[in-house]
Amino acid sequence: MTDNNAPIGVFDSGVGGLTVFREIMRQLPNERIVYFGDTARVPYGSKSPETVTRYSEQIVNFLKTLNVKAIVVACNTASALAMEEIENKYDIPMIEVVKPGAKAAAEATQNNRIGVIATEATIKSNIYCRYIKNLNNEISVTGKACPLFVPLVEEGLLNDPVTIDIAGRYLNDLIKIDIDTLILGCTHYPLLHETITRIMGGKVALINPAYETARKLKDLLTDLNLLTENKTLKDASHSHRLYVSDSAEKFKIFANTIINYRNLTTKTINIEEY
Amino acid sequence: MTDNNAPIGVFDSGVGGLTVFREIMRQLPNERIVYFGDTARVPYGSKSPETVTRYSEQIVNFLKTLNVKAIVVACNTASALAMEEIENKYDIPMIEVVKPGAKAAAEATQNNRIGVIATEATIKSNIYCRYIKNLNNEISVTGKACPLFVPLVEEGLLNDPVTIDIAGRYLNDLIKIDIDTLILGCTHYPLLHETITRIMGGKVALINPAYETARKLKDLLTDLNLLTENKTLKDASHSHRLYVSDSAEKFKIFANTIINYRNLTTKTINIEEY
Repeated sequence: MTDNNAPIGVFDSGVGGLTVFREIMRQLPNERIVYFGDTARVPYGSKSPETVTRYSEQIVNFLKTLNVKAIVVACNTASALAMEEIENKYDIPMIEVVKPGAKAAAEATQNNRIGVIATEATIKSNIYCRYIKNLNNEISVTGKACPLFVPLVEEGLLNDPVTIDIAGRYLNDLIKIDIDTLILGCTHYPLLHETITRIMGGKVALINPAYETARKLKDLLTDLNLLTENKTLKDASHSHRLYVSDSAEKFKIFANTIINYRNLTTKTINIEEY
Repeated sequence: MTDNNAPIGVFDSGVGGLTVFREIMRQLPNERIVYFGDTARVPYGSKSPETVTRYSEQIVNFLKTLNVKAIVVACNTASALAMEEIENKYDIPMIEVVKPGAKAAAEATQNNRIGVIATEATIKSNIYCRYIKNLNNEISVTGKACPLFVPLVEEGLLNDPVTIDIAGRYLNDLIKIDIDTLILGCTHYPLLHETITRIMGGKVALINPAYETARKLKDLLTDLNLLTENKTLKDASHSHRLYVSDSAEKFKIFANTIINYRNLTTKTINIEEY
């Protein structure tokens, strides 16, 4: 018997998945969340499917020790490379970010031309294209890896001329083919919303899979009758737990730019042991 | 009894340490080298001393299974954060890159003002400053972390306007204080030699610790009577072995830009098992 009041497990390669964590907090304010950021092995986006799958399995093993009732793979790269394997291996309800993002984009496009920006590994997997084609084979999907976006975001250069220059190069091909919808296929990219809008122009819809993922999570927990029974808890933030595989101190600094860190604690664990 | 014909172990967080590997091949052409690049957990430069030390220990454990006669820590971050601990723990001759780089810089400076550029973790450790001060307390040492240099190099943007812009920002403080010697304290940075020279001007001596490290290794092996006896082997390149913790295919592509990859093979191992 799964405990309705058990927490939801959310994981990412690092801090970026907190944009998904934030969205879940907003849409499911009574739920407790356990977040894991693999900061000792970040980034995933330049690594191989085998490695990302092994890491994801270790993280699921760890989250299971905390008796989570469901798991959200908040990392696009792990969703793209590892989801199929871990979904088959474990008997716990799981949600990832690629399918919800693909669905939202397919619904948003008017001219059937969608662009996807993501890490090298996610683009190489071609997974957004496959999901979108499954929904509507008439849509054309063009992917573009943007490997410098994550380091630029982590340097805080969100609206810097250098970031605008680099974004211009990455996005140029997508502008040329007249896409009307762009998936931000990496959890760091919503932080570049302003710069990307500036380059793409206001007419291109930017899809942040986090919103759709949290909505799908809510549906899943409702269907499985797994929503928390704790209705008195107006603010569950005291009960959230954050875990990382490297130094908690450094994580907190960046985490604070995404979520209100007040009342939260972060603990370091050795993920290789799982 | 150590076997004189045993290989030398060289390791780095990824591919950058091949600049040290290349220098050892040049200065010790008869020696066999085993190289390990921790591509599944790269980069080290943004991670904590505890994590980098644990990773370094696993790598030394792995290299010992290959019966190496000496180990070269070719990664500045591992040298800065882990060397003291692993040197004490193992009874194998070890050399790192920070001390040789510090010595070369202290010898090169005329005006006693040295700059160091490196990863965030290396700069934070303040280790170059401490070593140089030990050699000559009158030298002033100023460090500057350059976290975007590694991703820019790995994107191949060696002489790009964006790299020149970013380098200008990083190096501006060092130009202002009139340094005459600059340590390239990360194995990727020698690949930015041209851009850095352009910004610093031709009068600033750029120190690449790789050269000095290989020289020190030669001295150490000579002192310990551990140089290979194999004098007939004019080209040991057939006997070098490369290992990585993530996909070998991707590693080879970048490796080829640093060394002549002909005749070399790369194997993937699971470093977490050591």
